[in-house]
Amino acid sequence: MAPKGKAKATTKGVGKGIGKKGSSKKGPGGSRSDGVLARGLARVKTLTEQLFQKHKDEQPKTLQELGITNVLKEVVEMESASVSTVIERVFCGIVETILVGEGCQYSIPTRSSSNQHYVEDLDRIVLKDKVSKKEFSSSSTVRKVTITTRILQLVNELCNKAIHVTKRDLFYTDVKLFKQQNDSDDVLNDVACLIGCTRTSLNVVASEKGVVIGRVQFREAGDLIDCTRMGVGGKAIPPFTDRITDIKSDASFILLVEKDAAFMRLAEDRFYNKYPCIIITAKGQPDVATRMFLKKLRHTLRIPILGLVDSDPYGLKILSVYMSGSKSMSYDSANLTTPDIKWLGVRPSDLDKYNIPEQCRLPMTEYDIKTGKELLEEDFIRKSEIWVAELELMVKRKEKAEIQALSNFGFQYLTEEYLPRKLAEGDWV
Amino acid sequence: MAPKGKAKATTKGVGKGIGKKGSSKKGPGGSRSDGVLARGLARVKTLTEQLFQKHKDEQPKTLQELGITNVLKEVVEMESASVSTVIERVFCGIVETILVGEGCQYSIPTRSSSNQHYVEDLDRIVLKDKVSKKEFSSSSTVRKVTITTRILQLVNELCNKAIHVTKRDLFYTDVKLFKQQNDSDDVLNDVACLIGCTRTSLNVVASEKGVVIGRVQFREAGDLIDCTRMGVGGKAIPPFTDRITDIKSDASFILLVEKDAAFMRLAEDRFYNKYPCIIITAKGQPDVATRMFLKKLRHTLRIPILGLVDSDPYGLKILSVYMSGSKSMSYDSANLTTPDIKWLGVRPSDLDKYNIPEQCRLPMTEYDIKTGKELLEEDFIRKSEIWVAELELMVKRKEKAEIQALSNFGFQYLTEEYLPRKLAEGDWV
Repeated sequence: MAPKGKAKATTKGVGKGIGKKGSSKKGPGGSRSDGVLARGLARVKTLTEQLFQKHKDEQPKTLQELGITNVLKEVVEMESASVSTVIERVFCGIVETILVGEGCQYSIPTRSSSNQHYVEDLDRIVLKDKVSKKEFSSSSTVRKVTITTRILQLVNELCNKAIHVTKRDLFYTDVKLFKQQNDSDDVLNDVACLIGCTRTSLNVVASEKGVVIGRVQFREAGDLIDCTRMGVGGKAIPPFTDRITDIKSDASFILLVEKDAAFMRLAEDRFYNKYPCIIITAKGQPDVATRMFLKKLRHTLRIPILGLVDSDPYGLKILSVYMSGSKSMSYDSANLTTPDIKWLGVRPSDLDKYNIPEQCRLPMTEYDIKTGKELLEEDFIRKSEIWVAELELMVKRKEKAEIQALSNFGFQYLTEEYLPRKLAEGDWV
Repeated sequence: MAPKGKAKATTKGVGKGIGKKGSSKKGPGGSRSDGVLARGLARVKTLTEQLFQKHKDEQPKTLQELGITNVLKEVVEMESASVSTVIERVFCGIVETILVGEGCQYSIPTRSSSNQHYVEDLDRIVLKDKVSKKEFSSSSTVRKVTITTRILQLVNELCNKAIHVTKRDLFYTDVKLFKQQNDSDDVLNDVACLIGCTRTSLNVVASEKGVVIGRVQFREAGDLIDCTRMGVGGKAIPPFTDRITDIKSDASFILLVEKDAAFMRLAEDRFYNKYPCIIITAKGQPDVATRMFLKKLRHTLRIPILGLVDSDPYGLKILSVYMSGSKSMSYDSANLTTPDIKWLGVRPSDLDKYNIPEQCRLPMTEYDIKTGKELLEEDFIRKSEIWVAELELMVKRKEKAEIQALSNFGFQYLTEEYLPRKLAEGDWV
């Protein structure tokens, strides 16, 4: 159970990262390595300028400014007190309609795809203005109205107590009424649209699985979190980002990693000490909490995001979820999506460029190829010629490769050769 | 994107937990609540004394002390330098056998179930002394010998560099030789037995998924981690525990939680501020890293572990993995298992005791019932009459319930009523 003296000695004194840009502790051949570092940082700086120059006083454009009118006001993050106020207003409205003899009813925005609208300028999906009336007096909607009323009551309680629960907790508060979790989950999305706030503003959250490490500090529920001092395991991203405040960082970019094996390599090598960056992974398919956290970092820090994923259709799908979101939560796309993520690697063209040996490339299955071809039709691929070319190359060669295939050249090839070269060459698309 | 003022105010100033035992900030009716707290802490203290009185100068008993001789020396945690030394010694041995004309061969401990032995005094499985010779000159074992040699070489490199990689990384360093990951994984376990160290000591680790929060501080790769100041998301448990040193805590017990929804409730309510404890979850089936971390905490702090799992066969299975380990890694059971975990809840008898309504109880499927009956035959259940009685009740009633079923009585029922009552009554088995 004794600590490994050797391991400890090697890392001691590292991790006082913030403020100490580019200490050249690692990497063979200090001066060559420093040159690579300087070129990499210059490339990232240029990218940052490119990304943000067009909107210098960037306030994210509103739908009104874009002249789009037949669109429902998008949902926004709201404070608990405001959510409560809106709920009270909704109930007052219902009392009034009952008093004038129109009975108890809700006008709920339709979330079906016929009411979804892709706004190119914003690069995201929003809801159009169609609403449907749910009446207590109709036998087809009486149950929906009852569930909606109960959920509004429960959400009001959560907001007043300022606590968060999961969708599962919510379901269990009234199993007799909700019967199955799908029913309460579904109404929860309706309620978010009705109030005009994000689902997280309702204080109902999904579970967390993301981890962060690197050059960023913030307060989480009042606690000061310094992600340069999170050992090798990193900090678990909390299930609700509204408790995250006072974000500070001297990072030049965010490195978004598909898998935790790569995250571990980067964390253990303290890659962020040399290349000032923030490293995030959702360990596979991104969850809502990680997507919101990424969005919040990007919005606050205005630095580029570089994606490191497997060279297969699922790697691209993961990037797409971060970039365009999922259709079922399209009403909340503004708060969940981060459009301009750069695809750093591992790209199909890297396989030859970096001489990945045949035996580390895997043949794509029929299903992989089918998924790849379907992706070629998607908007988020088609808007970039290079992305199309890369994906076409993958489908043509019928070869895929994992990030870990780089281990073929040595365990630290990723952090000591591949990423430094990628950054120095500005090799992202 | 503004932080929720209300939520922030509620939690501000909390989280300076360590040293401030039992502040009664929460819970209605201060004095009643304080009485419950005092009774709960007294119960836990008694449990601690019971658990640890029999071995006051507890050095975990060795196999020699127990008089068990036909058993292979168990694997131990080793420093990287020691692992390297043993590898060099193994290679010197091979050079000698080649020189005397016996060729290149390894004597590898057999890991099959016929060579496994359950030691009741230690409550864990160890390997007996059967070894099998793998010869380079035999066509049936030449491949195994080659892979073993290559793995030994790679592990030596990892130990010298003091870095950690995943099993997947290791596989990709020589795909041509290993062909499929199963082959390199399998030899990795052989190599651990051959050297006599844990798999983690080989610097090859699995991925992490556990999270910890509460009254514990430690150093992780040199960084000071204070788990009372980890916001609401907690600290990700690192994939290797050998980097964790200087563990300090004023906790009275460890609360082991099956699901992250319950973890979130406990974290947000800062349950550990009032009840000095450490809260851990592996988010379902426990991974090696979380099991090692739990073992290390228990070994260092000598405090009881209370398990909070769903009232179904899988909740019990999860407890069993923490307690007895999995058979495939039985050679490493000493470093992965924590035998005497107390089953706090949710137990089948709780359903009536806490009046869980019918609609929050779920009917067990045929498969659930079958699994339950199989568990009744397992040693870790049979050694406690109360566990048997509880499981028999579950199978007889054919009812299961999740931890979240407690939300039926209010979102904070878990932290404000259920757990305080459980602790005050010493209601664990």
